[in-house]
Amino acid sequence: MNKRHGAGQRIRQITSATNPLLKVFRHALAEGTTREGWLAVEGPHLVEEALRAERAAVQSVIIAAGARTEFRSLLARVPPPAEVVEVPDRLFRQIAATESPQGIAALVELQGANFDDSVARHDALVIVACGLQDPGNLGTIVRSGQALGATGLITLEATVSPFNPKAVRASAGAVFHLPIFTAEKARPLFRRLHEAGVRIVAADRHSPSKLPEADLRGPVAILIGQEAAGLPPEIAAEADMAVSIPIRPGMDSVNAATAASILLYEAARQRGFNY
Amino acid sequence: MNKRHGAGQRIRQITSATNPLLKVFRHALAEGTTREGWLAVEGPHLVEEALRAERAAVQSVIIAAGARTEFRSLLARVPPPAEVVEVPDRLFRQIAATESPQGIAALVELQGANFDDSVARHDALVIVACGLQDPGNLGTIVRSGQALGATGLITLEATVSPFNPKAVRASAGAVFHLPIFTAEKARPLFRRLHEAGVRIVAADRHSPSKLPEADLRGPVAILIGQEAAGLPPEIAAEADMAVSIPIRPGMDSVNAATAASILLYEAARQRGFNY
Repeated sequence: MNKRHGAGQRIRQITSATNPLLKVFRHALAEGTTREGWLAVEGPHLVEEALRAERAAVQSVIIAAGARTEFRSLLARVPPPAEVVEVPDRLFRQIAATESPQGIAALVELQGANFDDSVARHDALVIVACGLQDPGNLGTIVRSGQALGATGLITLEATVSPFNPKAVRASAGAVFHLPIFTAEKARPLFRRLHEAGVRIVAADRHSPSKLPEADLRGPVAILIGQEAAGLPPEIAAEADMAVSIPIRPGMDSVNAATAASILLYEAARQRGFNY
Repeated sequence: MNKRHGAGQRIRQITSATNPLLKVFRHALAEGTTREGWLAVEGPHLVEEALRAERAAVQSVIIAAGARTEFRSLLARVPPPAEVVEVPDRLFRQIAATESPQGIAALVELQGANFDDSVARHDALVIVACGLQDPGNLGTIVRSGQALGATGLITLEATVSPFNPKAVRASAGAVFHLPIFTAEKARPLFRRLHEAGVRIVAADRHSPSKLPEADLRGPVAILIGQEAAGLPPEIAAEADMAVSIPIRPGMDSVNAATAASILLYEAARQRGFNY
């Protein structure tokens, strides 16, 4: 049985737990991505952000029968080529990865961003995540990056995936907006950044150079290290400069996502919040 | 059998899972506190911070047999009235609340701080947590507060406990250093703050008053609202001023702990990091 919703789009009913699409959703919501690399997201806020983002193409939406009225206007905005599937509430709970499912989920294809457009620019403000392990921290950095004018984020090897479900949730949908790249090795990345005229700034809690006195105007890439260990020395050694956040004696550091966000704020402040 | 360790202190061996002290530890590590309000913490970093903090009195330490050599110097610093108990590794895993127990835990009595000493001062920088729900966020704020010169933190009703185990872990031990208070109702608290000459500043993402232009010198209390909903209007209405972090168009907000940390950083910057 097919029904039409507000935008004239068909909603397909699925009631069998063994339906292949539901298997794809269940697996992808647990892992964060499908085999072809589409992101799987839950909840109206993330679906809304995916529909809003230019670089994101919603491919498939799944709705719990009991949530259909509540999310009617959201469903009406799903673009025609995408499929909308309705399932009984109990089936939705089975495929959801969250403890309190909100009744809507989507598969989203994210178009790759252009590295040079994000990095080789006079106002480049790039975060390089060097080994962060906590997906919540990385997602929070993506959110702060998009909010505070970052032009891109690059994850180095041994860093948690920004498309991990926890990271996507912590990003509050910013993962669909901020250009994100992965780089295996630091040296070729740093060479490319230097060729583009980008200064490399290490966030280093032990640096005597204090943040507010550092000039963060002009193109910069900020290196953020692993939560406990900080930046690997061989990576910190490649930076053009290091900065530290002035911290009260007796305290070692702030949270890694907090540090990244404070550096982004200071850079944005120096640039006059010109975004 | 009793053994003496480095500092000449007795280490009591417990091998029975039904021992009452182990029951107290197991319950307290899951809940965060014992019935008498002592904090239960796991891992060498938090035990170290508790030993270091003036306001914290370590009452009891439990060590897994296999971790005793590794944490010898830490055990040697446990003050004499406190009890040190060694248990077989398998028993330690049973009482631990973390997935990868590190072999050491402690019960810690935290002495109450004096409200007027923390708040009625010319350099007061207080965070008022108004309804935050995520213990990780609240703990991160405690950590940033201690790192960036806050003189205290106050939680209003309907805010998650700062002594929740996740909050304590996110605080990285700052919970033992930063004076923390709870206030049931906003109005009597705000009256007390005003009597002490403290200005009340609402972090409000919709405020036209931009953070870097706001004067955060002098005694201030910064109100941080709930993650999704922000500050309740009736609380925001009581503030002397509101400020917002300038955010890129299309983005709604940054994470609540990030916002608090950026406000603390800006206040610290304006005060010349005078701590």
